[in-house]
Amino acid sequence: MPAHDAVEVIIAKRDGAELSDSQIDWVIDAYTHGEVADEQMSALAMAVLLNGMTRREIARWTNAMIASGERMDFSSLSRPTADKHSTGGVGDKITLPLAPLVAACGVAVPQLSGRGLGHTGGTLDKLESVPGWQAALSREAMLAQLEDVGAVVCAAGSGLAPADKKLYALRDVTGTVEAIPLIASSIMSKKIAEGTGSLVLDVKVGTGAFMKDLERARELASTMVALGTDAGVRTVALLTDMSTPLGLTAGNALEVRESVEVLAGGGPADVVELTLALAREMLAGAGRTGVDPAEVLASGAAMDCWRRMISAQGGDPAADLPVARETHVVTAPTTGLLTRLDAMAVGLAAWRLGAGRATQGAAVQAGAGVEWHARPGDLVTSGAPLLTLHTDEPERFSRALESLEGGYDVQPTGTAYEPTPIVLDRVS
Amino acid sequence: MPAHDAVEVIIAKRDGAELSDSQIDWVIDAYTHGEVADEQMSALAMAVLLNGMTRREIARWTNAMIASGERMDFSSLSRPTADKHSTGGVGDKITLPLAPLVAACGVAVPQLSGRGLGHTGGTLDKLESVPGWQAALSREAMLAQLEDVGAVVCAAGSGLAPADKKLYALRDVTGTVEAIPLIASSIMSKKIAEGTGSLVLDVKVGTGAFMKDLERARELASTMVALGTDAGVRTVALLTDMSTPLGLTAGNALEVRESVEVLAGGGPADVVELTLALAREMLAGAGRTGVDPAEVLASGAAMDCWRRMISAQGGDPAADLPVARETHVVTAPTTGLLTRLDAMAVGLAAWRLGAGRATQGAAVQAGAGVEWHARPGDLVTSGAPLLTLHTDEPERFSRALESLEGGYDVQPTGTAYEPTPIVLDRVS
Repeated sequence: MPAHDAVEVIIAKRDGAELSDSQIDWVIDAYTHGEVADEQMSALAMAVLLNGMTRREIARWTNAMIASGERMDFSSLSRPTADKHSTGGVGDKITLPLAPLVAACGVAVPQLSGRGLGHTGGTLDKLESVPGWQAALSREAMLAQLEDVGAVVCAAGSGLAPADKKLYALRDVTGTVEAIPLIASSIMSKKIAEGTGSLVLDVKVGTGAFMKDLERARELASTMVALGTDAGVRTVALLTDMSTPLGLTAGNALEVRESVEVLAGGGPADVVELTLALAREMLAGAGRTGVDPAEVLASGAAMDCWRRMISAQGGDPAADLPVARETHVVTAPTTGLLTRLDAMAVGLAAWRLGAGRATQGAAVQAGAGVEWHARPGDLVTSGAPLLTLHTDEPERFSRALESLEGGYDVQPTGTAYEPTPIVLDRVS
Repeated sequence: MPAHDAVEVIIAKRDGAELSDSQIDWVIDAYTHGEVADEQMSALAMAVLLNGMTRREIARWTNAMIASGERMDFSSLSRPTADKHSTGGVGDKITLPLAPLVAACGVAVPQLSGRGLGHTGGTLDKLESVPGWQAALSREAMLAQLEDVGAVVCAAGSGLAPADKKLYALRDVTGTVEAIPLIASSIMSKKIAEGTGSLVLDVKVGTGAFMKDLERARELASTMVALGTDAGVRTVALLTDMSTPLGLTAGNALEVRESVEVLAGGGPADVVELTLALAREMLAGAGRTGVDPAEVLASGAAMDCWRRMISAQGGDPAADLPVARETHVVTAPTTGLLTRLDAMAVGLAAWRLGAGRATQGAAVQAGAGVEWHARPGDLVTSGAPLLTLHTDEPERFSRALESLEGGYDVQPTGTAYEPTPIVLDRVS
């Protein structure tokens, strides 16, 4: 006789009750083993979305998802570990310069990453544009690279939080993605199971992000920080702007190129600023004080680490990156001040050009994406290039151009313009 | 390219929007044909339960379920038709005397009924305790019996509202039964598809009913009355008490016996009162004025019709009814006034004695059930029989007795007692 049944648990949450530890443990375990059916879990997910969960429920739910699979352990490493997770943004290549930078400061960075789906790119897709680079690593190879190089970006194995994997696929088709308790437990179950000692969350806010407004982003951030802290992972979150895309490119090889510029001491100012802000948080979380990541970046040590990190996974850091076969230039409509460049518009355009995928497992183009030649606050000249679109398939231009319509504003020179800071808030 | 997709419809209802006609038509049709998956429909059902539906949405949803199957038509009959539907109660044998009584008054009564599940019995289960009686009739046989005898109680075919059949089974396992829009559309889609000219709804209220409080029962009743009226079916609802079980018996053969007593001019006063109240509404709905059902009952014409109705479906109205092999008597604990006899306690006891089923398709005992020898307001004597339990399997007594614990109160003689009326309200 099982301890609970699915209808009892669904009705409790439906009627606004707080689920007991025993109910949560049972329902996650039974769902993982197929004893709770998909149609029951989706009804429960909808009830959670509409009626919410307490902090205690979310923590128990997260723990139950961790318990559904294996856990990793980095305690044998000679260095402390720090991980970073971004909720996903347009042009968000920060992991690429950040991981080698933090590793060069003496902290091991295990970045178990995913592929992109929809308008935001995936870190693995970006790195796969480097000739020869492989995302799949055995656990032993990953640990050896962490000890040796200090940074690894690789595909997460299927053994961590399998309940989350199953639930995430279900939420995707049942309109139950946008529930803060389910988002927070999904992210944190994987990060806690992974075994990092400290974690910095980059919660994106704005038109190009999953969270469109600051209040909901702050709620998600504080929920995740509490989950991490309770599980013994030193966790902090930065709320960062995603109304404008990061840097000057969105795409796979395009973003690798921009990341290498940052590692070489150049690159767009916003990418450098956010990379350093996250690096400082990761170093603090790992207890590595007295190291200034800006100095390490300037010293070239981060670039050295990048090259070793790429080589260790079969990539050639000196190889030319793929370039799309076709380009299309969009010029500025008038002379004036660029006051807005919408992250969602740019993200959709890059996706439609072939940089992203619409269904899991589909291929992406390495060279496809969008470059913009000005950022909000910059002056533009009528007829001069504003955006360059890249794709191997020119028939994709028209749909990409559609998504850019209304996606930027040029105002008369002299219009007052107040830049949005990159880091909007910090939750610890 | 389909007009809609499931996630879009789910998210619209989740976020509190009113679904369009096109969304509702699409989702019911696609669900019937397996293009919307169970896990999507259950998430939608939960969103409907928690966020509600407007009258327009409920009407469209009902129509879409009717359109998923075939419709019947009684317009070829020489008499007007009237149907009755009860939301289910303990000891609710009213259909048995009511159908022949209304037929004897000149109105055709097509009662497409179901079997019981849980603590309330099913009309077909009760009639099947009559030796030889068959629930299954072809459509032609049903129409012929309606024309000839005037009353038929038979199993509903599977061709009416198949979308409802599929959705009802899903709601049962996903905690989404208790949604007024879904309950109302489920009942009314079948009744409208059946083609009755008028309909009287008996909406039960109280501990033994699906609806525990008057406000929700009134909301359900008015929703169903509006649906029927909009579909051209003259519809009225009575809200009736189900805090106390009806009559003096709950069980299959036990209730047939009590019904025959009513047809013979005797029987418990509450059963007679409710039968006559519903008969008057059915006659009025069918436009049959100037006939007093109390006189028709007293004349013996309703009993004649009962005998013909039973015989037409292979039953022997003169045969002895089955009797359970074992009985157990519960005596009154003290001398005094019986002030409460709880419908749910009695219903559960009858179910546990074998009168009902726990899973669809299971067999029921014809003789099992509960008799009570007093009703609230009656004086009882310490040690005298209060309840008699009937079953073929004496090992069932202990669980039945458990469900009766705390199910009745005996107060000192002289305690003030205010009887609850049977008919609590009328919605038209």
